[in-house]
Amino acid sequence: MYRTHTCGELRITNVGQQTTLSGWVQRTRKMGGMTFVDIRDRYGITQLVLNQDVNAELFDLANTLGREFVIQVKGEVALRSNKNSNIETGDIEILVSELQVLNESKTPPFTIEENTDGGDDIRMKYRYLDLRRNNVRSNLILRHQIAFETRRYLDQLGFLEVETPILIGSTPEGARDFVVPSRMNAGEFYALPQSPQLFKQLLMVSGFDRYFQIAKCFRDEDLRADRQPEFTQIDCEMSFIEQEDVLNTFEGMIKHLFKFVKNMDMTEAFPRMTWHDAMKHYGSDKPDIRFEMKLVELKEIVSGHDFVVFDSVPYVGGICASGCATYTRKQIDELTDFVKRPQIGAKGLVYIRCEADGTFKSSVDKFYTPDDLKNIAALFNAQAGDLILILAGNKIKTQKALCELRLEVASKLGLRDKNVYAPLWVIDFPLFEWDEDTQRFYATHHPFTSPNLDDLPLLDTDPGQVRATAYDMVINGVELGGGSIRIHDSALQNRMFELLGFTPEKAQAQFGFLMSAFQYGAPPHGGLAFGLDRLVSLFAGLDTIRDCMAFPKNNSGRDVMIDAPSKIDQVQLDELNLVIDLK
Amino acid sequence: MYRTHTCGELRITNVGQQTTLSGWVQRTRKMGGMTFVDIRDRYGITQLVLNQDVNAELFDLANTLGREFVIQVKGEVALRSNKNSNIETGDIEILVSELQVLNESKTPPFTIEENTDGGDDIRMKYRYLDLRRNNVRSNLILRHQIAFETRRYLDQLGFLEVETPILIGSTPEGARDFVVPSRMNAGEFYALPQSPQLFKQLLMVSGFDRYFQIAKCFRDEDLRADRQPEFTQIDCEMSFIEQEDVLNTFEGMIKHLFKFVKNMDMTEAFPRMTWHDAMKHYGSDKPDIRFEMKLVELKEIVSGHDFVVFDSVPYVGGICASGCATYTRKQIDELTDFVKRPQIGAKGLVYIRCEADGTFKSSVDKFYTPDDLKNIAALFNAQAGDLILILAGNKIKTQKALCELRLEVASKLGLRDKNVYAPLWVIDFPLFEWDEDTQRFYATHHPFTSPNLDDLPLLDTDPGQVRATAYDMVINGVELGGGSIRIHDSALQNRMFELLGFTPEKAQAQFGFLMSAFQYGAPPHGGLAFGLDRLVSLFAGLDTIRDCMAFPKNNSGRDVMIDAPSKIDQVQLDELNLVIDLK
Repeated sequence: MYRTHTCGELRITNVGQQTTLSGWVQRTRKMGGMTFVDIRDRYGITQLVLNQDVNAELFDLANTLGREFVIQVKGEVALRSNKNSNIETGDIEILVSELQVLNESKTPPFTIEENTDGGDDIRMKYRYLDLRRNNVRSNLILRHQIAFETRRYLDQLGFLEVETPILIGSTPEGARDFVVPSRMNAGEFYALPQSPQLFKQLLMVSGFDRYFQIAKCFRDEDLRADRQPEFTQIDCEMSFIEQEDVLNTFEGMIKHLFKFVKNMDMTEAFPRMTWHDAMKHYGSDKPDIRFEMKLVELKEIVSGHDFVVFDSVPYVGGICASGCATYTRKQIDELTDFVKRPQIGAKGLVYIRCEADGTFKSSVDKFYTPDDLKNIAALFNAQAGDLILILAGNKIKTQKALCELRLEVASKLGLRDKNVYAPLWVIDFPLFEWDEDTQRFYATHHPFTSPNLDDLPLLDTDPGQVRATAYDMVINGVELGGGSIRIHDSALQNRMFELLGFTPEKAQAQFGFLMSAFQYGAPPHGGLAFGLDRLVSLFAGLDTIRDCMAFPKNNSGRDVMIDAPSKIDQVQLDELNLVIDLK
Repeated sequence: MYRTHTCGELRITNVGQQTTLSGWVQRTRKMGGMTFVDIRDRYGITQLVLNQDVNAELFDLANTLGREFVIQVKGEVALRSNKNSNIETGDIEILVSELQVLNESKTPPFTIEENTDGGDDIRMKYRYLDLRRNNVRSNLILRHQIAFETRRYLDQLGFLEVETPILIGSTPEGARDFVVPSRMNAGEFYALPQSPQLFKQLLMVSGFDRYFQIAKCFRDEDLRADRQPEFTQIDCEMSFIEQEDVLNTFEGMIKHLFKFVKNMDMTEAFPRMTWHDAMKHYGSDKPDIRFEMKLVELKEIVSGHDFVVFDSVPYVGGICASGCATYTRKQIDELTDFVKRPQIGAKGLVYIRCEADGTFKSSVDKFYTPDDLKNIAALFNAQAGDLILILAGNKIKTQKALCELRLEVASKLGLRDKNVYAPLWVIDFPLFEWDEDTQRFYATHHPFTSPNLDDLPLLDTDPGQVRATAYDMVINGVELGGGSIRIHDSALQNRMFELLGFTPEKAQAQFGFLMSAFQYGAPPHGGLAFGLDRLVSLFAGLDTIRDCMAFPKNNSGRDVMIDAPSKIDQVQLDELNLVIDLK
């Protein structure tokens, strides 16, 4: 037997017992005739003591141990004279009577500590060592807990987890598929699923009633911090339900996770905000509502003062940064640079300081009287000491820029505490988005999303105004998940395809098997999907989903540890009837 | 709200209540002025009643309902005069006051009944309708329960579920990989994992201590009834353990599943049988021990009687079919044909009847005296009325043929009851298999399997005799899972590679990242993997794993419902730098 206890288990109540521990050498310290070894495993760290006077041979062996050696020790649990309150086993230590080296270790290329000296690249190459660090491993423990509690909650509600296939057919719409050449069907390819969407709808046609799956999904897109070629969704679908049922069920799921994973009670109902209000007040369909600082529309009040910047644009709006009137010129310049970055693209930034003495000072004093400024400040309910920041331009683009500015200022003000969670539902998304380039409507969500039935008459007169029965769950500015009620009526589905510019033939080619299935008694149904990676990141307070995956890929889609992808044999290519033709 | 109750929920205690149900029309029966409609959902069937005298309009509407229409009804729960004890709602019926057709249905191409009139091909094409059948759906409900209870058991024991990647590197050894061309790394390919083997061992190096994953695995092999291109494993690994720990942990898991999924208590310890005994007594490394009928070796006793068939071969063995002395010539001919099929390949079958009167009658009376036959029968403990069946030839091949014969006879005798479960562990597999063609040893399991440490001296003198620390769990002749203790010592691993004919360069090329990882403190570890599909099949009493998968592929690897795989666009091929070259 390699151990009687783990390295995180022994307490003061075990003093006097014989124990056997196995684990990795975290550190050794020689202090005169005593050597202390910290032995580590997944569960904790325990201090070992070797006394030269008691056993010189063991003492010498202990002094040869290198970092990350795997050892097994036997000994007596003893009370520790200088206790270590930082670790759970800090009351005890082990008086070692036997010591065996189970495996040696080369010196690791970086320290196995929470604050390691290893850079990103070396840690990814040696991911198996990086995963030994407590903080990295704890993200994966959290991931296990979230997945497990998700399943427990959904199982209790009668949801069935059904595995849908990974080798499916390619769908030309949407993001780029990864494809898999078929050997048995020469010249043909499987595709890896971007989501189990079609299959879960088929399962509703099959009468499964309540389906879920924690499913691997794949997207061959260029990568950035929160994108990976493979990612994991909590994918769900229900039959004989309306939007309200879906929202209640999955609000319940998130509350369950907060309770059983983070031990936080979320008793309040999640607020609901229309997409229209989210855009108007926050400039975003995923508002961070941990703090107010809402966008205020100013076009009307600022127009007609000969300030051509404001007069010439369709939208002027601002935010009020509480207590920031003391910002220096340099600080305001930094914010100006921030909004002028190409990703945000504002032309400039106008400010109004609400001075402590009740006066106003702005970058546009030439055009606006103190009374004008006072009236503007009143729209923000600005107080003495506040700083108003104003952007102007195209409406959507400027709202989005204000959203970025709002988040930046909030970060500076410490309003985005990772331990505070502010969830909400964003509802009433528009059903269609108009694309100027191609002069046609696209489905905001996907072509199976049901319009709000109250808006059906608008389908003919003003499709852009039709609301979808679609919803997103947002926490702290992160879109955790979203979904919709699906169309189950063939006539309405055909009308949708028509509006989206699909010919019946094209609709048949792309979605034929779903359309066929719907002719055999499709129930009313709807659902949603959560990004498991994002959910874990949010719970862990991480900035990127990469840190909550065991073996992520880099921005080139490479796994640098196993060095994949790689070249394959000519035999394999021949069997697949493929020739590589590098441009 | 679409429903207040499901179609399987209402009982006698609900009589008098108003209810709303939604579901599919299973059947309508018009009997004079009354129409009865059976409405079905996942949870059950409820009888609806419409009375022409009460509401002629509703009555007429009900008579237009076709099979599989989706309807919603409201009405009062009433006591049923002629109760139906076959269904759980058989005590009640619904007096319908409102009826709405939610969706119509074309006439399905086969009946949605347990005993359907649809053949395999049509049911696979319309799998979404096939999945409506209770018996098909119940297999998937069982699959959900097994997966959920597996997770619950392992979570309680501190196992962490860790997702390993699906896009990994290709490994030239073993079965054929599915590959995925990389767009971002032109000319290179990912491979889909045949198992997470290397990653789970890396997780042990990372100190995860106890890992599991219910993982999708892929193998591009020619298919047969129990093979699918994608399949699911319950994949597990533990550190600081010995074989005994693994066996106990996973014997516990299987007992947990029997208890919580099938409500069967398995209190006995699973028997353990060496591979050597399994081959000797059952001619198989996955013996079905629901019944005895062990193989008996006869070479010694039958030799020297001038019967050249027996004298000229290295192995003669037989089984004793209890009570089968009455088998007719035709029945014995059938068994002879069975063993002469090319898959089994025996040359012929010798029999000895132990007649009711104590005499013997055999197909080799010419060579053996009644006393000889009596002595042979004594080796089987054969009783009057038994039938001894004997095969001869090459040892391994003949043992395997006897195994097939044994199973065939047992099936005829009704000894293979699907509701009886006889588990065992097969242990002490040989570490190496000698291949005559290539004149070299291959790893029976995989190159990381540890030899039994008692056999280390044999590595140099007689490698073929070295036992592996490998184990399989077998139930009813099905290998449900297997695994091994892994080598964690680099020197021993290198010795293994040498014996397997790997040059250091080749070992480095194929397993380099694992070899590197092992230099940084690999703990002693081991594990196993269960086939989830086989486990579900066994629990469901199915003959093929296909029936416990929601969307299986056919023997050509095609999903005939969605018609995948399929051709892809030239644009996609160009982006992947691929040209198709059909031979």
